Amino acid sequence: MTYCVGLQLQEGLVLISDSRTNAGIDNISTYRKLHLFEQPGERVVAIATSGNLSISQSVISLLQEGIANPETGDIETLLNVSSMFKAAQLVGRAVRMIFNTDGASLEQHHAGFDVALLVGGQIKGRRLRLFMVYAAGNFIEATEDTPFLQIGEHKYGKPILDRAVSYRTDLYDGLKIGLISMDSTMRSNLAVGLPIDIMVLRRDVLRPELVHRIDQEDGYFADLRHRWSRALREAHLAIPPPPYGGRS
Amino acid sequence: MTYCVGLQLQEGLVLISDSRTNAGIDNISTYRKLHLFEQPGERVVAIATSGNLSISQSVISLLQEGIANPETGDIETLLNVSSMFKAAQLVGRAVRMIFNTDGASLEQHHAGFDVALLVGGQIKGRRLRLFMVYAAGNFIEATEDTPFLQIGEHKYGKPILDRAVSYRTDLYDGLKIGLISMDSTMRSNLAVGLPIDIMVLRRDVLRPELVHRIDQEDGYFADLRHRWSRALREAHLAIPPPPYGGRS
Repeated sequence: MTYCVGLQLQEGLVLISDSRTNAGIDNISTYRKLHLFEQPGERVVAIATSGNLSISQSVISLLQEGIANPETGDIETLLNVSSMFKAAQLVGRAVRMIFNTDGASLEQHHAGFDVALLVGGQIKGRRLRLFMVYAAGNFIEATEDTPFLQIGEHKYGKPILDRAVSYRTDLYDGLKIGLISMDSTMRSNLAVGLPIDIMVLRRDVLRPELVHRIDQEDGYFADLRHRWSRALREAHLAIPPPPYGGRS
Repeated sequence: MTYCVGLQLQEGLVLISDSRTNAGIDNISTYRKLHLFEQPGERVVAIATSGNLSISQSVISLLQEGIANPETGDIETLLNVSSMFKAAQLVGRAVRMIFNTDGASLEQHHAGFDVALLVGGQIKGRRLRLFMVYAAGNFIEATEDTPFLQIGEHKYGKPILDRAVSYRTDLYDGLKIGLISMDSTMRSNLAVGLPIDIMVLRRDVLRPELVHRIDQEDGYFADLRHRWSRALREAHLAIPPPPYGGRS
């Protein structure tokens, strides 16, 4: 399983990804699911992946090798596409190519073609954008109304995002809320786990402001989990007891 | 969609159920999903249902009519079974009978046989118990280690239960936490909605202490939602910002 969340805020982009994969509950490994494609000062494209690891790794490999444009024959990569929209299209094309290669065989083995990707970043002179690419290669985009996108095990961590995140949320508050969302998911689904990879990209800066891996030893994350647990306990204790009685 | 949660606590049983059903997003109705079978002073058996409404209604109808015991020929109902374990078995048998009647036809129409039920209560001289019955008619039971069971849209509302509920939680604190869990679910999934039916059964009392429907006009529930939202906001604001910087 996997949980990744991306926030496209007024001040910039936050991407957070766990790194646990499992083939069955008895076969758990750590894989980086947050990938950076960058030319500092010119562009940053970050991709977070969920779903079948063989599919997502193949998609990333294909994007690293580049894909021939069917009309011009030019090799397109995330380092030479001219906009984030074209980057999302390129990722979608890579997903479709892997589907054409592997989809039928996976189906013969009753394994679905399960993959989803968050694609976020900015190219010089263009807007910072965040997309979610589906298994069919189509995609949607985060907006001011709905400034976050999630892939993988998304439900446990959604309530806090629904309540706490808006487009005007401060960049590092966004990171903090994203980490709370990750914590809620990790508590309820063992298949989502540490380490956590994070990236912060400030709007118009064109190089990541923060690239960091949170591991078991991370004091801040341990403190955040502890404080959040205590705050929730205090919060529900502070609500008065239900006044209902009898039958009505 | 549906969300129901049951808590089997030291002091007794809490059952909470929403009442929204939908056949597609454009066809939403209100149906009671919390059903009581009782002989005051002798037994209370409460059932909350989720899944395909035609299946769950048929199961309830069958339980109301009673089911012939295959060995003795006696008509068994929830009002004459001798223990909660036998009540859960009877519900499981009703589910299997509806599967035998409707399962193949549903499959022909590509509709799964989707149903789950919470069955909780107490019979005089026996233990208070809470079961979850699956579509196959098998069932599991809540324990001191895991004192709550959920059916339907369970993920959004699970984090607060995981953190806040233990077997020794006060009965009305349990109800309060269950309502917070319901609120989190309603915020994230429109197919779960008011009114909410609740029942509280104190251990060894053998008549419900509380049977109540929370509707749009309910001041306490509106206040709980407001207080919880504010407390979550204050809780995440009180956590210090992440100390990370640069690349590591």
